[in-house]
Amino acid sequence: MANFKGHALPGSFFIVFGLWWSVKHPIKYLNKKNKGLSRFNRFYQRLDLIEGITKAVFALVGILAEQFVPDGPHMHLVNGEDHSWVKLMNWQHSTMYLFYGISGVVDILTYLPLKVPVGMDRLFLSLAVFIEGLLFYYHVHNRPALDQHIHSLLLIAVFGGSISIMIEVFLRDHIVLELFRSSLALLQGTWFWQIGFVLYPLWGAPEWDQSDHGNIMFITMCFCWHYAVALLIIAINYSLVFWCVSRRKQLSGDVTLGIKKLNGNHAEAQTSLLAESEED
Amino acid sequence: MANFKGHALPGSFFIVFGLWWSVKHPIKYLNKKNKGLSRFNRFYQRLDLIEGITKAVFALVGILAEQFVPDGPHMHLVNGEDHSWVKLMNWQHSTMYLFYGISGVVDILTYLPLKVPVGMDRLFLSLAVFIEGLLFYYHVHNRPALDQHIHSLLLIAVFGGSISIMIEVFLRDHIVLELFRSSLALLQGTWFWQIGFVLYPLWGAPEWDQSDHGNIMFITMCFCWHYAVALLIIAINYSLVFWCVSRRKQLSGDVTLGIKKLNGNHAEAQTSLLAESEED
Amino acid sequence: MANFKGHALPGSFFIVFGLWWSVKHPIKYLNKKNKGLSRFNRFYQRLDLIEGITKAVFALVGILAEQFVPDGPHMHLVNGEDHSWVKLMNWQHSTMYLFYGISGVVDILTYLPLKVPVGMDRLFLSLAVFIEGLLFYYHVHNRPALDQHIHSLLLIAVFGGSISIMIEVFLRDHIVLELFRSSLALLQGTWFWQIGFVLYPLWGAPEWDQSDHGNIMFITMCFCWHYAVALLIIAINYSLVFWCVSRRKQLSGDVTLGIKKLNGNHAEAQTSLLAESEED
Amino acid sequence: MANFKGHALPGSFFIVFGLWWSVKHPIKYLNKKNKGLSRFNRFYQRLDLIEGITKAVFALVGILAEQFVPDGPHMHLVNGEDHSWVKLMNWQHSTMYLFYGISGVVDILTYLPLKVPVGMDRLFLSLAVFIEGLLFYYHVHNRPALDQHIHSLLLIAVFGGSISIMIEVFLRDHIVLELFRSSLALLQGTWFWQIGFVLYPLWGAPEWDQSDHGNIMFITMCFCWHYAVALLIIAINYSLVFWCVSRRKQLSGDVTLGIKKLNGNHAEAQTSLLAESEED
Repeated sequence: MANFKGHALPGSFFIVFGLWWSVKHPIKYLNKKNKGLSRFNRFYQRLDLIEGITKAVFALVGILAEQFVPDGPHMHLVNGEDHSWVKLMNWQHSTMYLFYGISGVVDILTYLPLKVPVGMDRLFLSLAVFIEGLLFYYHVHNRPALDQHIHSLLLIAVFGGSISIMIEVFLRDHIVLELFRSSLALLQGTWFWQIGFVLYPLWGAPEWDQSDHGNIMFITMCFCWHYAVALLIIAINYSLVFWCVSRRKQLSGDVTLGIKKLNGNHAEAQTSLLAESEED
Repeated sequence: MANFKGHALPGSFFIVFGLWWSVKHPIKYLNKKNKGLSRFNRFYQRLDLIEGITKAVFALVGILAEQFVPDGPHMHLVNGEDHSWVKLMNWQHSTMYLFYGISGVVDILTYLPLKVPVGMDRLFLSLAVFIEGLLFYYHVHNRPALDQHIHSLLLIAVFGGSISIMIEVFLRDHIVLELFRSSLALLQGTWFWQIGFVLYPLWGAPEWDQSDHGNIMFITMCFCWHYAVALLIIAINYSLVFWCVSRRKQLSGDVTLGIKKLNGNHAEAQTSLLAESEED
Repeated sequence: MANFKGHALPGSFFIVFGLWWSVKHPIKYLNKKNKGLSRFNRFYQRLDLIEGITKAVFALVGILAEQFVPDGPHMHLVNGEDHSWVKLMNWQHSTMYLFYGISGVVDILTYLPLKVPVGMDRLFLSLAVFIEGLLFYYHVHNRPALDQHIHSLLLIAVFGGSISIMIEVFLRDHIVLELFRSSLALLQGTWFWQIGFVLYPLWGAPEWDQSDHGNIMFITMCFCWHYAVALLIIAINYSLVFWCVSRRKQLSGDVTLGIKKLNGNHAEAQTSLLAESEED
Repeated sequence: MANFKGHALPGSFFIVFGLWWSVKHPIKYLNKKNKGLSRFNRFYQRLDLIEGITKAVFALVGILAEQFVPDGPHMHLVNGEDHSWVKLMNWQHSTMYLFYGISGVVDILTYLPLKVPVGMDRLFLSLAVFIEGLLFYYHVHNRPALDQHIHSLLLIAVFGGSISIMIEVFLRDHIVLELFRSSLALLQGTWFWQIGFVLYPLWGAPEWDQSDHGNIMFITMCFCWHYAVALLIIAINYSLVFWCVSRRKQLSGDVTLGIKKLNGNHAEAQTSLLAESEED
């Protein structure tokens, strides 16, 4: 779908995942030393399962949308008459979604008691991102300068993300890597929207001059601004989670304190000790 | 051998190794905590020895095939008459096989009590793959666009494999890396066959238009599909191994249980404990 | 500010930071096993805070200078009349400073009791350096050969620094990485000055021939000499810090010795033991 | 010195170092668990010192040779008459030697009780190799195809070595990395000689056709053969060291056995135990 919607759809998927990760990982990180491990671990595993299912569903939606839009290939690859390829662009996009779908399925399998090796989910996510980058890299040959440039900037986010996720295979649960991944997902998402706006102007906005050097310079800078905004969103989400977790700890600390107090004064020293240890 | 067979031969070698690794490494991984270490270690070392010998033999077959096919160089490098090079293509292929042969020899040496440093076998395999990539990289200059493109895609699998194996020098017995290596070997193998089919169509199939952009786009996508299939094969093999190992554990667990039961009821509690610990 | 000052300003910032790091990190490294941990840690945290504030202030100065110099954009991005971009060069430079500013803010936040994950400050510094490199990379298209070459050498220092700082996310407080970072900051700083001198000759010096191959060869070599000087400065600063720390240890050792001696002769054996242990 | 000698000189330096490392590191590795640590450590530190001095002396010889050969620049950089550069090629070569000299000086400083951080020697060696690669990279612009190609192959050995040595900063005393470094040094050395033979044929040998594609293909393959030979030399040296160390252990074991036997039969059991433990 070489139109606005074809960029808005994957862009939205990436934004959803970027936002979701920027909330999920800080929650896990800030709760780490806080609670009974087993209960929380089961909770997070269920979250990972839901994430995997969502990923697979999104990928399926993407594949179906690419195949069965009115001007799509409808699962035909070769034109019977003149042996030419049918709508290769849509097929390439379907392929991208396919690998994200595979990654989602691996996430689901990881949840099942199948002894999928630790790190396999990250490997498949990294591969999905890499395949996306590979297809994009050969996608934009013979296009106008601005089109090539705006896609090549996307590749920085894509391959950066792929490398970063590959490192997570070995350094699992590293909060810095996880937040970095979130920020790159957000960047990719908003940049997809930006590509849509630039290449397929909406509401009768004027076309961009594809060969103007000023436009290319602006787009480079604009990419950096997108990332600054992505980092800001990550920071805000992290702060909100921090505030919520601190607040809940304080409350539960007070409750514990209150209950204990009813047991009489002789337990006071221990109680305050407990409350303190839960606050830090 | 710039023909179909010259691509099918190495392709088959890589498929054999990819399949073999995708079975060997899961067996080792899933049996790790299960049995007496010493007996299994000796078994795996013998497997590695056989693997090394196979590698060396395959390489020798490759070298001999490249040198002594009817239109091969028959070990002549320089033409005596006009001082020109003789069949450099075949010589380059022989060189590729040579390094895989060296890697096989190092595998064999590792088995002998020679104190070859741990990781040396991986280093030499990584170097063999790198040399293959290096020769391919300079191989395809001045070729038609499709020919270059289809070989440059191969390079992704080759250099990806080389880097991944190099990491195994430092992170030995990392199942994710090992399965990744298996998948890249499979990809290389099937892609060699694909190159053969595209560049030297069999059974009177029509020639591919080497400069058609559609063909190049399809080939890029086709490469991704090959990898999806490779990943699927890895997943199936892993599942089969998992199923076999679980089944055998269950059986041997039952047997242990049965034998113990004969010893009388007083040992029951310990028996069930043992059976449980062997099941997880 | 495509003039001498526009290169001297950031150059000076980098030199200040390079010098500062080449003193700060050796002090921390050489004092590590020496003193009470808690007092020194608080001292170093305060240093990091001051560093963060300085970074943010420098970045703000840079942004304001780029925006409000007489021929700057004064915060206008689009020319209202013909919808053309206003002074994109200055906007790009402002964007570079912006990311250094963000890095400074993250340094400050790390000081506050907000549980900013360890390594976040390094990640943001690495990103700031990367963004600088990214903007420079697309900055120099369509420029004369010498101009491109002199900027592409800068990119080596920039991307080398970015990678090195990214490794510090995982290997924190690694003195070799820290000194390497210092040396690359110094190199960047002096090279900015060099670019200024070459592209905008001062005091009526003759213009450089932008297409002369000899000039390009000299500039390559000159870059290496800059780095040799940077390494020399790092070595001198390290030696000075080493000398100061050793001297102070010796002095405090003598004082301890003196005080102890007053306590009488019976403590002599222990005293000398103590003095020795403080000297090594 | 763009002639045969100018390539043979550095080539010989690299061969000497490659051979030396391929003996030194196996000795250290194979003796590791064998002897009193302190005596051997002092011995190896002295070896490192000698290595550093040799490196510095070689570098000095190189610089002097490049500067004061009859057609050298004799320390003049700018021609006073027409403000042109004097013999930039020789100056670039001097710069390469300079960084190896610095690396040698750092090796010497590491020996002195100056608390040079561990890994600094590797960092400076890595930098010296990188600078060599950098200068070579910009060295070969505007040269014939074969000249460029033969130098670009050299860059693979150079940058590969630089990365490998950089990893040694973090993974010190890793025998695989050390042998890999040795092999790359040997490769560089023999390749320098090869470049000399190809570009400046000796004894009236015919000139190579610089644009013949066959020559380029042969040179690529020849590079691989050089590496195969380098690996073979490493393997032989390792085996020789292994044989010597085993032999000496056996002898000293026998001696220990003999001496102990004189002490009477009652100590026999312990003696044989000792001899065994020294043999494995």
